[in-house]
Amino acid sequence: MGRDSFGSLFKITTFGESHGKGIGVVIDGCPAGVSIEREEIQRDLDKRRPGVLAHTSKRQEEDQVEILSGIFEGKTLGSPIALLIYNKDSDSSKYHPIKDLYRPGHANFTYLEKYGVFDYRGGGRASGRETAARVAAGAIAKKYIAPMEVIAKISEIGGESDHTKWEALLQEVEEEGDSLGGIISCTITGVPVGLGDPVYEKLSAKLGYGMLSIPAVKGIEFGLGFQAATKRGSFTNDPFIQDESGKVSFSTNHHGGILGGISSGMPITFRVAFKPTSSIKKPIDTLDREGNKKAFLLPEGSRHDPCIALRAPPVIESMAALVLADAYLLNRSGKI
Amino acid sequence: MGRDSFGSLFKITTFGESHGKGIGVVIDGCPAGVSIEREEIQRDLDKRRPGVLAHTSKRQEEDQVEILSGIFEGKTLGSPIALLIYNKDSDSSKYHPIKDLYRPGHANFTYLEKYGVFDYRGGGRASGRETAARVAAGAIAKKYIAPMEVIAKISEIGGESDHTKWEALLQEVEEEGDSLGGIISCTITGVPVGLGDPVYEKLSAKLGYGMLSIPAVKGIEFGLGFQAATKRGSFTNDPFIQDESGKVSFSTNHHGGILGGISSGMPITFRVAFKPTSSIKKPIDTLDREGNKKAFLLPEGSRHDPCIALRAPPVIESMAALVLADAYLLNRSGKI
Amino acid sequence: MGRDSFGSLFKITTFGESHGKGIGVVIDGCPAGVSIEREEIQRDLDKRRPGVLAHTSKRQEEDQVEILSGIFEGKTLGSPIALLIYNKDSDSSKYHPIKDLYRPGHANFTYLEKYGVFDYRGGGRASGRETAARVAAGAIAKKYIAPMEVIAKISEIGGESDHTKWEALLQEVEEEGDSLGGIISCTITGVPVGLGDPVYEKLSAKLGYGMLSIPAVKGIEFGLGFQAATKRGSFTNDPFIQDESGKVSFSTNHHGGILGGISSGMPITFRVAFKPTSSIKKPIDTLDREGNKKAFLLPEGSRHDPCIALRAPPVIESMAALVLADAYLLNRSGKI
Amino acid sequence: MGRDSFGSLFKITTFGESHGKGIGVVIDGCPAGVSIEREEIQRDLDKRRPGVLAHTSKRQEEDQVEILSGIFEGKTLGSPIALLIYNKDSDSSKYHPIKDLYRPGHANFTYLEKYGVFDYRGGGRASGRETAARVAAGAIAKKYIAPMEVIAKISEIGGESDHTKWEALLQEVEEEGDSLGGIISCTITGVPVGLGDPVYEKLSAKLGYGMLSIPAVKGIEFGLGFQAATKRGSFTNDPFIQDESGKVSFSTNHHGGILGGISSGMPITFRVAFKPTSSIKKPIDTLDREGNKKAFLLPEGSRHDPCIALRAPPVIESMAALVLADAYLLNRSGKI
Repeated sequence: MGRDSFGSLFKITTFGESHGKGIGVVIDGCPAGVSIEREEIQRDLDKRRPGVLAHTSKRQEEDQVEILSGIFEGKTLGSPIALLIYNKDSDSSKYHPIKDLYRPGHANFTYLEKYGVFDYRGGGRASGRETAARVAAGAIAKKYIAPMEVIAKISEIGGESDHTKWEALLQEVEEEGDSLGGIISCTITGVPVGLGDPVYEKLSAKLGYGMLSIPAVKGIEFGLGFQAATKRGSFTNDPFIQDESGKVSFSTNHHGGILGGISSGMPITFRVAFKPTSSIKKPIDTLDREGNKKAFLLPEGSRHDPCIALRAPPVIESMAALVLADAYLLNRSGKI
Repeated sequence: MGRDSFGSLFKITTFGESHGKGIGVVIDGCPAGVSIEREEIQRDLDKRRPGVLAHTSKRQEEDQVEILSGIFEGKTLGSPIALLIYNKDSDSSKYHPIKDLYRPGHANFTYLEKYGVFDYRGGGRASGRETAARVAAGAIAKKYIAPMEVIAKISEIGGESDHTKWEALLQEVEEEGDSLGGIISCTITGVPVGLGDPVYEKLSAKLGYGMLSIPAVKGIEFGLGFQAATKRGSFTNDPFIQDESGKVSFSTNHHGGILGGISSGMPITFRVAFKPTSSIKKPIDTLDREGNKKAFLLPEGSRHDPCIALRAPPVIESMAALVLADAYLLNRSGKI
Repeated sequence: MGRDSFGSLFKITTFGESHGKGIGVVIDGCPAGVSIEREEIQRDLDKRRPGVLAHTSKRQEEDQVEILSGIFEGKTLGSPIALLIYNKDSDSSKYHPIKDLYRPGHANFTYLEKYGVFDYRGGGRASGRETAARVAAGAIAKKYIAPMEVIAKISEIGGESDHTKWEALLQEVEEEGDSLGGIISCTITGVPVGLGDPVYEKLSAKLGYGMLSIPAVKGIEFGLGFQAATKRGSFTNDPFIQDESGKVSFSTNHHGGILGGISSGMPITFRVAFKPTSSIKKPIDTLDREGNKKAFLLPEGSRHDPCIALRAPPVIESMAALVLADAYLLNRSGKI
Repeated sequence: MGRDSFGSLFKITTFGESHGKGIGVVIDGCPAGVSIEREEIQRDLDKRRPGVLAHTSKRQEEDQVEILSGIFEGKTLGSPIALLIYNKDSDSSKYHPIKDLYRPGHANFTYLEKYGVFDYRGGGRASGRETAARVAAGAIAKKYIAPMEVIAKISEIGGESDHTKWEALLQEVEEEGDSLGGIISCTITGVPVGLGDPVYEKLSAKLGYGMLSIPAVKGIEFGLGFQAATKRGSFTNDPFIQDESGKVSFSTNHHGGILGGISSGMPITFRVAFKPTSSIKKPIDTLDREGNKKAFLLPEGSRHDPCIALRAPPVIESMAALVLADAYLLNRSGKI
């Protein structure tokens, strides 16, 4: 692990500020021989791009990924894979009016205390933009872990699970300049029995670590999750059965595919809670760096994502794929 | 990190099977000069011991901790601190009737697939007993991080937050041989601004990693947690204020003390969900290792914890203290 | 550490193949506030560039470094610093005649066995070109560790320590198409007492690790080194004295500035042995991938470095600076 | 890695001060199913024990190893293996006269500066006694890496390679109360092609790291080592051949079994230089903690090893086996 790294054997290190020259990632430890084309990486990046969904930020970043190393003639070489995305739309002049304000819900106050640096140009490393680098790396991890497959979907917006109502809710907050939270559900299929370890490297702990490192995430639960705390053991203990092929399996999946930290062969299921986007167009009390009381709101013309959870599924899929690729490599050392 | 290790600079490595000779921990990276007496470690161990609470397992383990190294005349030396607890009550003969069965809710099936080893003597490393080693280490971490203080409390049992009803619920499941889940709330006060990092080493991510590595944990949420997903940004964005001493603070703490992965100076708050104890005295369908259908239930005379969450608070406090000690040491490298 | 990473807190990850698009490095963990200009990095790179010294390879790489992230207005931000050098001169067609041959003294045979990949375009990651990325990172490490200063010098070429004879020796092997080894001496001054740790993170062990990770290095010795093995303890034990300022010091420095793994305040001294350049223009028996006997020699027009040690000093200085920066940060966690 | 840890996947953490309650090691990452008996570990410990060789310290430590966890019925379980050796002979009263002196050649001065702790009872963690824990762990690593075999031998004492002269030299320094250095040669056979990595995890770099972490080591060289620096490339480039079985091999082994950081299939050869034992019975100028000039010499009745290199071979074999076990596990992740 590390400040800007994730993973032990399949390890990524990301770099780049949201308003600097570019962002990128180095993937160290991807085995040689994985088939991957630039277009596959680009396709995943395009999914998380602002502007492709209605109600997501209109910023036109393009986010064209460049492969700097580690891939030759469509195959990984076993050497580190460096991917670079130059920043295009990074005019930060519009942030001038708020450049000395603590931003509610943001990290610029904690940053200043920690690093002695106050980067008014945007979120710096704490920006959601850093997740583009994770998505690029995740595209390769997904190829490596196939036939395992990770699917993340929006399951709630603003507390509403009926998706016919989301459009109206989003319309409403957009008009008000406010924002909504949401919950993403993720299912991973095709997972072999045995990934993860029984103590500190539990697969659930590592997935949780990965998900909680995504900006705006406030919680994660596996299988029945917080509901499990309200049940009895006679309900939550999933009975063992043999499936039609003779393989040991379970008649229910309340555990969510991980038992004692190790994958059970059942689909892995978890849910991730996102808080509402912090940058809104309604005033919030704040202070400037001299301690004067101010009201904070996004300047006119600023990008505004009314619900950051809308863009989260590809990020969650990528982080999950990165955790699984790492667990898969680590698992090779379990038996002699 | 690592299979049996936790932490980067304040790092623990635990060892020992639940039914082996003993369990223990090596703490590597604790600075020299921390005052700690054996009795302080013992006191924390006694809190998590089964049998001290009504409705917890009657096993009389005693769990006397022995300091093997790293502490001299009541002070840490800067060298690794090794703590050992010999196992006393480890008669495993009573497990004979179930020795070839997959245990519902347990890890012995996933273990067998992973390691090719089927240890019928109990949970091995996946056992809750491993958490005694964490508590021993946590006792030292707590001394190091003072005046930060970690307090974990039971907030729900079996879905019931009114604690006048817990006794009856526990009585009921104990008679039925069933079990209950629960939720623990944790608050950490006295945290300086600036612990944690903005990307992968977010303080929330590391706390989540630690908590999700505790057996039976199914979910974690920070601040408003899953409720945040149902709110609007104009509510969840905590306004900045100056407190009476002139220090920058917040008028509310919906964020739960961590902003952008970094401690904000407000109390850190999180909740952890525990599933019901897996070992119960009601039969659950299972298989033996040959694939024959069987019913699993705990043998007569086995220990039975009707609600494992009851013993969780000292474990959660210890893991939180270990994360904070590590974050505190890592934070020394933020500025020149 | 890691396959392509070095360091614990001041950590670098390098990427790029010698004949790919470019090479680079991400520095993760450099504190905020270190002053550094692009020109300072470029200046160090220019020192190791082939072609600036007589008798070094004529390849005109230019090696213009681009700062992608982590530095703003001449100061490090505390975020990861990414540096990129595009490859210019990478025509690999001249390697065609030798593309299926095992190269004596090189890694392409071991690579093929390990990765199942046979990259005929040059040394890939094993190429000396990777060291440019270390030099770029080292330029920043040097600024951080000032006033510590690292100076590496050529002390022997071809077994000859009288440098008036080097020119003739080099002339001779260049005409023959052969190559020479050499020894580099390094001295680090201004080191505070207390860097390094007493067991596995001995400062000598980490410096040794760094130096032995440089291509073509065959040995390292500290202080008296191998000569110490021929002396008596009454000679090698350096007496303690007080210097004129009252500071504890030593009357001799046979130990080479590191005692029990920890810096003593005396100058750190070590010597590094380089084997002769492996790529020569004299035939060596080899095999092709089908097992046919062949003679290997560099194709006409290939670059040829008659003595790779000539270019080593800036690489050694950089690796030493990286080790010291890491040790300096790690040392902040020694005391409470 | 880490202060008291070594290895990435096959990782050891040692603990214990030389004059405390005991020393030990936790091995984390050893795969399940390795056959090992307590007696095999004990046998290796007995080889390094002081007192079994003439001219080594007469201390009767016994060093009985106790297996606390991780081994059951003669096989490793895949869980952490904890080994404990209680200290027997640790009367430190004889050190009283020197308790406030800086010990020439020792780490107590650097320790005091680093940790603020001055442990007069002996070497603490810097003591050679810590190597007993490495030997215990190495006994298991050796079983795991079989049929690879590591053999270390004394090749020089006091600069003399003719071992018929060693007895007289040792006799001489023992009478004088002085000490001698020495050189150990190590050969590793049966190594498959492909262990190690091309950049920072070169097998040579990791072996060097391990060896330089052994107390009193001042240098290491691989293959021809420092001699390689005096040769020409046409000599040092080992020609490729096919051996009688058709396997690719080399007609000479000047490279010492590692090419480009990766094992070549040839025997790995290296040499390690030890300085003379620092504790001698001849006076050396020193200071006490108040800065007063004193003469340091071992008190009457103190243990005295005239040549610490005599006890080094089992330590070197163990460290090499630990490096190889780690490299073997890491190598499983090279290809898909």
